[in-house]
Amino acid sequence: MIQGHGDDAWRFDRPIRANFSSNVYGRVDLGALKAHLASRLDAIGHYPEPEPYSLERALALRLGLDPAAVCVTNGATEAIYLTAHAFASSHTTILQPTFSEYADACRLYGSECSDGAFSDLLVAGRSGGAGTVRKGEMPRALTVLPAREIETCESETGGVERAMRCPGKPGMTMIWLCNPNNPTGGVVPKEQLVEAIEGRPEMVFVIDQSYGFFTRQPLLTAAEAVRLGNVIQLHSMTKRYAMPGLRLGYVTGNPRLIDRLRAVRMPWSVNGLAIEAGLYLCEHPDTGPIDLPALLAETQRLREALDALPGLSALPTQTHFFLCLLDQGHAADLKQWLADYHGLLIRDAANFEGLDAGCFRIATQTPEENDLLIAAIRQYLEEVAQ
Amino acid sequence: MIQGHGDDAWRFDRPIRANFSSNVYGRVDLGALKAHLASRLDAIGHYPEPEPYSLERALALRLGLDPAAVCVTNGATEAIYLTAHAFASSHTTILQPTFSEYADACRLYGSECSDGAFSDLLVAGRSGGAGTVRKGEMPRALTVLPAREIETCESETGGVERAMRCPGKPGMTMIWLCNPNNPTGGVVPKEQLVEAIEGRPEMVFVIDQSYGFFTRQPLLTAAEAVRLGNVIQLHSMTKRYAMPGLRLGYVTGNPRLIDRLRAVRMPWSVNGLAIEAGLYLCEHPDTGPIDLPALLAETQRLREALDALPGLSALPTQTHFFLCLLDQGHAADLKQWLADYHGLLIRDAANFEGLDAGCFRIATQTPEENDLLIAAIRQYLEEVAQ
Repeated sequence: MIQGHGDDAWRFDRPIRANFSSNVYGRVDLGALKAHLASRLDAIGHYPEPEPYSLERALALRLGLDPAAVCVTNGATEAIYLTAHAFASSHTTILQPTFSEYADACRLYGSECSDGAFSDLLVAGRSGGAGTVRKGEMPRALTVLPAREIETCESETGGVERAMRCPGKPGMTMIWLCNPNNPTGGVVPKEQLVEAIEGRPEMVFVIDQSYGFFTRQPLLTAAEAVRLGNVIQLHSMTKRYAMPGLRLGYVTGNPRLIDRLRAVRMPWSVNGLAIEAGLYLCEHPDTGPIDLPALLAETQRLREALDALPGLSALPTQTHFFLCLLDQGHAADLKQWLADYHGLLIRDAANFEGLDAGCFRIATQTPEENDLLIAAIRQYLEEVAQ
Repeated sequence: MIQGHGDDAWRFDRPIRANFSSNVYGRVDLGALKAHLASRLDAIGHYPEPEPYSLERALALRLGLDPAAVCVTNGATEAIYLTAHAFASSHTTILQPTFSEYADACRLYGSECSDGAFSDLLVAGRSGGAGTVRKGEMPRALTVLPAREIETCESETGGVERAMRCPGKPGMTMIWLCNPNNPTGGVVPKEQLVEAIEGRPEMVFVIDQSYGFFTRQPLLTAAEAVRLGNVIQLHSMTKRYAMPGLRLGYVTGNPRLIDRLRAVRMPWSVNGLAIEAGLYLCEHPDTGPIDLPALLAETQRLREALDALPGLSALPTQTHFFLCLLDQGHAADLKQWLADYHGLLIRDAANFEGLDAGCFRIATQTPEENDLLIAAIRQYLEEVAQ
């Protein structure tokens, strides 16, 4: 999907003074990294390695993996498309609502996609009026489903079940999930995830851990996922180090799975400066330190303040971004109004599978900026949306 | 193909002091571009446009095209893979010998690939001994086939003919050629190319003009190719501006064709610094000036000096690189010897479709470096290869 993502400040005439629309937490001091890149600009003058071997080795060393278990990509986006390509024509269940690129990529490569269980619940609930979502309570449709619920709901949705019942068709059965999940901020409890993975060795679990740094919930480590054998983990250097302009991600997993990705990758997909940055960050992992406890505490403060506004629900999260739901009206109108009158940018979340027109996503910024947002949305709800 | 390309200095223990193995002419002053990038390193901190709209508009303006006729890519390599994907499961004829990525990409996306006519001639000739290639004469198999010869040879090779004779199978019929051609340096005469394109409106011609700057032969302009309607042109910013580390290319063609590429592209494939560089180069197209007449004259001097060595043929070219053929022995041995004993790197060309183990490619460097190569190869032929 080319259109419909966050961070679309370029669409608006008025300058955006605070940007809540991107999940990339930008309050990171990139000075040392930029100074390093400035000293390595000669890298533009020669071809990068056809596949970023040296960075794959450096990451493998840091993660305690065999280099064959690491595949560096042109952002996590290439990781998604490579995985979809490597497992083309699969039976794919995507736990919704989540990042739209999984479904786009899987469909592009001929996979049959089903929404993960409970994805219809919010739509049904919302169609009955906002009263079905109680304030401060996470609607089940908005959580990443714990493994037990996947089992429970198979017969309800047919998604996973249908995927398993096509032995006559070629391709694997794939389960895609994002953990922590975009846009909900939910994290699947680790022990339940492991139980699901171990219980279904015939399926491949694709787990996007791009936001893995931004939670205190326990997650599968790369080494654990490699040992499990049927897991492909997607990682983003962009999110932790706030450098989405460079495009740098990687995939880890059992070499048996990673080999399939290597077989469909094009050469030189990762640019030379991204490789330089990655090597630098492997040596200096504490570059651009982030006070995660403070960020998560501020997230809770912002969420609770928004949730206290009449006409709005702000949903629980386990990371630094979260979903909000308007009782009435369209998030698109709120977004436009916030940009036009306050120079604030939010992420209209209506185009996430299973979410409706009242949903938007907020990524926590500084306390001062967050206060601006709270005041502006209060004004909108009191004066505009009546 | 991840392995087997040029510019593989990283494989050798001894430092390479002169590199003839890459077609990227590196004697370009990138000072102004690097200074610009150093001032724009903040671009790493925000997402690039999901598709590089602003650079596509800037290129369109410069080329006199509708922006819908321009698709900017993560290097010309992404242009190749996107085209192969957009026209998956086609009947593809590739004029050989040429850049191996065309066939790799087309096969990856399920196309049935045939070699262009005359591709077997060199193999047959070579198997009969080096005498079949007369010094200073371009073997027909090593030229890019003029259109008339495509027609003539259809019944001989079956390549193009077979592609046209599969009306019952899905997909288009595609002809891929590189112009100027890598590795031969040949250029298809423009009027013959136009005649072929106009005569076969049901086929799509994919023309890689990555080396278009490096010839004085007339080529199809982007505007002419768009008007023809059945042409996809691949372009490289990398080659002209010697910045392969940044990854920046683009595709031009009738929007009806380019739309098919856009439909299969992933977002954010082009990194923010490559976009910054592209915008800068559209405004400053004379950055890193190259004295092309001098470069091509030096190419002829080098080629003639090598061709004069007993045991070697250096083939005519219309650009700054050319093919050589050893009468005896393997280019791989010569390559290793040159790297080990002289720190000189050449491109073993044996893995180009239709070329044999005696072939290697030389890209012209400075006169002093070229003299080192001539002397070293003379020594090899006189002392080592006996």
